[in-house]
Amino acid sequence: MSQIYNFSAGPAALPVEVMQQAQAEFLNWQGKGLSAMEISHRHSWFMSMVEQTEQDLRELLAIPKQYKVLFLAGGASFQFAMIPMNLLRGKNSADYINTGIWSQKAITEAKRYCQVNIAASGESSQFNSIPDFNQWQLNPHAAYVHYAANETISGLEFPYIPETGDIPLVTDMSSNILSAPLDVSRFGLIYAGAQKNIGPSGLSVVIVREDLLGDVLPFTPTLYNYQIQAENNSMYNTPPTYAWYIAGLVFAWLKKQGGLAIIAERNRHKAEKLYTYIDQSEFYFNTIDVRYRSKMNVTFRLKQSELEPLFIKQAEQAGLFALNGHKSAGGGMRASIYNAMPEAGIDRLIEFMHAFKSK
Amino acid sequence: MSQIYNFSAGPAALPVEVMQQAQAEFLNWQGKGLSAMEISHRHSWFMSMVEQTEQDLRELLAIPKQYKVLFLAGGASFQFAMIPMNLLRGKNSADYINTGIWSQKAITEAKRYCQVNIAASGESSQFNSIPDFNQWQLNPHAAYVHYAANETISGLEFPYIPETGDIPLVTDMSSNILSAPLDVSRFGLIYAGAQKNIGPSGLSVVIVREDLLGDVLPFTPTLYNYQIQAENNSMYNTPPTYAWYIAGLVFAWLKKQGGLAIIAERNRHKAEKLYTYIDQSEFYFNTIDVRYRSKMNVTFRLKQSELEPLFIKQAEQAGLFALNGHKSAGGGMRASIYNAMPEAGIDRLIEFMHAFKSK
Repeated sequence: MSQIYNFSAGPAALPVEVMQQAQAEFLNWQGKGLSAMEISHRHSWFMSMVEQTEQDLRELLAIPKQYKVLFLAGGASFQFAMIPMNLLRGKNSADYINTGIWSQKAITEAKRYCQVNIAASGESSQFNSIPDFNQWQLNPHAAYVHYAANETISGLEFPYIPETGDIPLVTDMSSNILSAPLDVSRFGLIYAGAQKNIGPSGLSVVIVREDLLGDVLPFTPTLYNYQIQAENNSMYNTPPTYAWYIAGLVFAWLKKQGGLAIIAERNRHKAEKLYTYIDQSEFYFNTIDVRYRSKMNVTFRLKQSELEPLFIKQAEQAGLFALNGHKSAGGGMRASIYNAMPEAGIDRLIEFMHAFKSK
Repeated sequence: MSQIYNFSAGPAALPVEVMQQAQAEFLNWQGKGLSAMEISHRHSWFMSMVEQTEQDLRELLAIPKQYKVLFLAGGASFQFAMIPMNLLRGKNSADYINTGIWSQKAITEAKRYCQVNIAASGESSQFNSIPDFNQWQLNPHAAYVHYAANETISGLEFPYIPETGDIPLVTDMSSNILSAPLDVSRFGLIYAGAQKNIGPSGLSVVIVREDLLGDVLPFTPTLYNYQIQAENNSMYNTPPTYAWYIAGLVFAWLKKQGGLAIIAERNRHKAEKLYTYIDQSEFYFNTIDVRYRSKMNVTFRLKQSELEPLFIKQAEQAGLFALNGHKSAGGGMRASIYNAMPEAGIDRLIEFMHAFKSK
């Protein structure tokens, strides 16, 4: 079979060069005669590796000094409880922006710990758009404001960072972190599950302003306490070492590409190419407000929706893997085109779309 | 450099055959053209794999039908909070047996959620022994009884399963699960971090009797709720897929070895060989009550303790990796000889110990 392009939303394709390096040194990491999977997180070799990993991430995102970077076990869904447990800080309500399924998951969990004010909701647009920022009903007494920077399922992305003044801004960037440069200083906390733009699943990255740490709800599990994790360099207990190692390779790869400005330009170009093809066809369509189309998850439907299962099946036979949309989005198609997806994958997809349409 | 033997306590060496297979199919899992790391947990290929993985584990441990098997993100330390949150079930106290550092970590976290009765403690023996079972002060109203089946740091292992009648027995088997056959029906809950006998770190296996599920403390995070995890086949959110895949390879390897009776005999033989050498030497010693010596973590000291750093350094130069004891145990040496350690590794270690002594 020729080269496969993997459009999985997550766990997702990682950069080919990263995977090749990981395979080459799988049994013999850095010539040390053993695998990165088989070494203690307390060993100096591992410690040096994770120091470099953090430094690379700090450099890529220009993370200011007053932010802690945590590498935590579990996916972003763990953060849905951790955020209220850590960030309520004596307050009893938080603002959430509802732009789709991932926002809603965060909201559902937060409601178990505090009053949730839905400051804005995309419901009236069936979550195809984001309410204008000047219409948001922000609560001046909220402990924080939470939003999902990119809704992976519908393919809807914030093109701007909301301005919340002194109220800490919290964002789920699971599916678009590291896709472009970011002004970290605008945030109180940024979190992301690794399995899209960072590495294997089972790891999350949390970037948090250190003055927000230390005042947790009394029943917070020790491992859910950001301050304890920060004080222990994310090694209070045994972390997901191999996933962390792969994240390090991905960060090094991003640096080698020239950094996030270059990555962002590539991502913009890839997404534009695909959306342009969709818009120009009479056969495919995308439902998301053009201002908020995701550059990471491009969803599309067939006007003849009964052909969608055939499209997905034949695409897979043609080496275009995992183009099926999420069941919560009512099916359809979704091409997740994270940093690791080369432009050649977009070209192959468009070629296939064109051939399928012609048939 | 010749073959390295890795005595790391965890993340630990995995079976060579498993690592070779994982490397060979790293970029092309089951001939599918992509990595096991890069596929959705919802994909039928992944689902089939995890079904087989659970079936293999059930077969290896002869797990009765009324037990759920969970594959959860994070290490065993996550369970320290999850256990009281899930198993108090309206009661407000639990019994804990204190046999060393891992017991104590579980106790410290449990105290945040309930009254902890230390039903027995090895403190008077400096945790070199286990108080006789007939002296345990079990509380007949305890929600459960918790013990660490193997104390990884000191190298102390229960040779029996405590009999607690109707009170659910809970055990941390992180460092000795799958080292021998086990009567699972004696337990309410068994948990283990993966990074010793199962796979990479960042994954835990929990085996829990299903009638114990469903009554959690009100503030329990959704992902800490065993029942929700069980109802969702450990896929409420994205699980650590690659670690799960490696666990599957390890279980298949164990079956190929002939199952746990054969593994147990190998482990007994390996540990006996090493303890016999230590006991017969005038140079090395082990402090653990012979009845409770661990077959997984063999600790030893030098009578001339000032030579210990040299021992560890020269051992590493000789390809015997990570023999340093845990700092909490006051240093010394520890050879972790899990299932993956071949007898040849023990032989090489004894040869080295003999040569070092002679020098």
